[in-house]
Amino acid sequence: MNAQTKIEDLEVGYDVPAAVGMRESEIQTPCLILDLDALERNVTKMGNWARGHGVRHRVHGKMHKSVDVALLQEKLGGACGVCCQKVSEAEVFARGGVLDVLVSNQVRDPAKIDRLARIPMLGARTICCVDDLENVAELSAAAVKQGTQIECLVEIDCGAGRCGVTETSAVTVIAKAIDAAPGLKFSGIQAYQGAMQHLENYEDRKAKIDVAVEMVRDAVDTLAAEGLECTIVGGGGTGSYYFEGTSGVYNELQCGSYAFMDADYGRILDKGGNRIDQGEWENALFILTSVMSHAKADRAICDAGLKAQSVDSGLPVIFGRDDVEYVKCSDEHGMIADPQGALKVNEKLRLVPGHCDPTCNVHDWYVGVRGGKVETVWPVSARGKAY
Amino acid sequence: MNAQTKIEDLEVGYDVPAAVGMRESEIQTPCLILDLDALERNVTKMGNWARGHGVRHRVHGKMHKSVDVALLQEKLGGACGVCCQKVSEAEVFARGGVLDVLVSNQVRDPAKIDRLARIPMLGARTICCVDDLENVAELSAAAVKQGTQIECLVEIDCGAGRCGVTETSAVTVIAKAIDAAPGLKFSGIQAYQGAMQHLENYEDRKAKIDVAVEMVRDAVDTLAAEGLECTIVGGGGTGSYYFEGTSGVYNELQCGSYAFMDADYGRILDKGGNRIDQGEWENALFILTSVMSHAKADRAICDAGLKAQSVDSGLPVIFGRDDVEYVKCSDEHGMIADPQGALKVNEKLRLVPGHCDPTCNVHDWYVGVRGGKVETVWPVSARGKAY
Repeated sequence: MNAQTKIEDLEVGYDVPAAVGMRESEIQTPCLILDLDALERNVTKMGNWARGHGVRHRVHGKMHKSVDVALLQEKLGGACGVCCQKVSEAEVFARGGVLDVLVSNQVRDPAKIDRLARIPMLGARTICCVDDLENVAELSAAAVKQGTQIECLVEIDCGAGRCGVTETSAVTVIAKAIDAAPGLKFSGIQAYQGAMQHLENYEDRKAKIDVAVEMVRDAVDTLAAEGLECTIVGGGGTGSYYFEGTSGVYNELQCGSYAFMDADYGRILDKGGNRIDQGEWENALFILTSVMSHAKADRAICDAGLKAQSVDSGLPVIFGRDDVEYVKCSDEHGMIADPQGALKVNEKLRLVPGHCDPTCNVHDWYVGVRGGKVETVWPVSARGKAY
Repeated sequence: MNAQTKIEDLEVGYDVPAAVGMRESEIQTPCLILDLDALERNVTKMGNWARGHGVRHRVHGKMHKSVDVALLQEKLGGACGVCCQKVSEAEVFARGGVLDVLVSNQVRDPAKIDRLARIPMLGARTICCVDDLENVAELSAAAVKQGTQIECLVEIDCGAGRCGVTETSAVTVIAKAIDAAPGLKFSGIQAYQGAMQHLENYEDRKAKIDVAVEMVRDAVDTLAAEGLECTIVGGGGTGSYYFEGTSGVYNELQCGSYAFMDADYGRILDKGGNRIDQGEWENALFILTSVMSHAKADRAICDAGLKAQSVDSGLPVIFGRDDVEYVKCSDEHGMIADPQGALKVNEKLRLVPGHCDPTCNVHDWYVGVRGGKVETVWPVSARGKAY
């Protein structure tokens, strides 16, 4: 969709799954719907938590890839900006008016570095992560060439085992190089523990974050002794934000999934042993699907398969129904066990996706519903922006 | 992208991963690339096989979702048209000039039925599948209302366990209803055995198709005795086309994956016990990815994760390399075991995706390469067209 295209001018069905004012039953499926009441409550709640604990919340835009959702998170949740994982996502957010953008990832390709260095021209504060000394010189040269400034965080690998350095000595070397490099500004530390977010038990997650906090504290203290202040110490996700947010070390949270929830996250337990989708957060994101065949008495076939979701973290769950179960996913179809023959052809069901991030990425639109009617249709602005 | 937008006007990086004439090393990653030589050889080979065996080939457009690839399959492979799974895909193919389109699926939603009935106005022969008597009346009413004709195939469930009827008596009842319904034309049988395509051994696949062929033969013979001719008896995939194509019953194949290949299909064995990607078909589709971090000596991180592919059928395989292995996939990253430290940051690798269909569906573009240079950039025309 071009920026000039108006949603009202799009063809329902071919271009877009719904029109504003339509009843939920008329939406073309499969598509993503957002329960706007639930979304707003989630966003407000997390914003209040961060404010109440004296930390900023830089919402993770890689989850929803939506300018509209990010702006809602700024407005209702007091978010200080977004983080995202790709330069192309950062371009989308900055062009859309989100003016504080962290690429919480390494940027190494020469053309991508050049694109990153041009984002400040859109009026956006631009931050990225570094885990390699060579990258400092590359980023610096691009910022100088474009006459802009890129802020840099040194990434610490605090358990994910992916990008990032593992020793404070390496953090210090890179931080000093950033501080000395023209066009760059050293702004702090990135330390996100992704691998533990989905551990079921609260205490197991806490143990992992305790390790991360100590690594980060050591780095922050060492840098301070060298005269380098960390204005950003960023990390934290939906399964751990209360640990980082009360650590006294982190000052910026990066939660994403809390806003929408999904089946995989929903299964983890809070401190009291309750599923986090049973009180802490509400399911706001659903795949709306229709039954399209019921040629077998005990089995309904719906229209949401692998083209409508990612099943990397398990199958979707049918929301609010105990009598039917989504049991198999093929390219275009979902198989639903319906032992009582309860479902009818064209009946619509709300599926809670297994994993929200890659599920959002296969769709072009969020259909926002309230009170059974379509209130808004938002583009998944950065869908497909992987490069 | 609007139909009016020219690819030359798009911004490399933000809009599109590559420009025509660019070297492969300059392509922005992750993105899909097509080895055009390999693609053309695959398409020509399957076309020759079908022609040589006196059957038509209706290529499956749900796999690539590309008007450009479908037109290439018509031109080089003699394809009689496409099949696809969604009305929105059929709309894309018909608008793009593919004028013989089968929706190899049920269409039940009233708005979708109306959209289907309008496709003939684009000049395209329009065919869909039926497995429920009620659907006949719905389709008929829409075709009459629009003043068009929809051809209908009765779908037989010959083992997939999804849509379709399982008894010849049910086939006959529905076929007669189609034949009698204004606006509809009874055109034959759809009987695709999807569940068996990925069985490793040739003889196991053959046993499954033998069952399907007998079911279909019984239905075709019974219908003929009732005066109903099957102009289309359609089915067959990349793992089975030689069975349907030599059955004497099927007259239209519906292969998709052969054109691109993927890691999961590649592992199945031909009659001689050889992998089908080692002689029968060539890998023409790759995810081009770049190494973006090598902060750990034995582990490289690349930029192709779950947003660049579907891992429902397993992880991608690094093409042409035995020394490195893609071992883990997270949202934005792939972890590559690199025990010898062979990889360098910014080095590009070709990944063979685990499953081509849902992987193509997360991308907006195919970058066609030949001789190390970008020759063409094709939109994934029906990407996201799930509804």
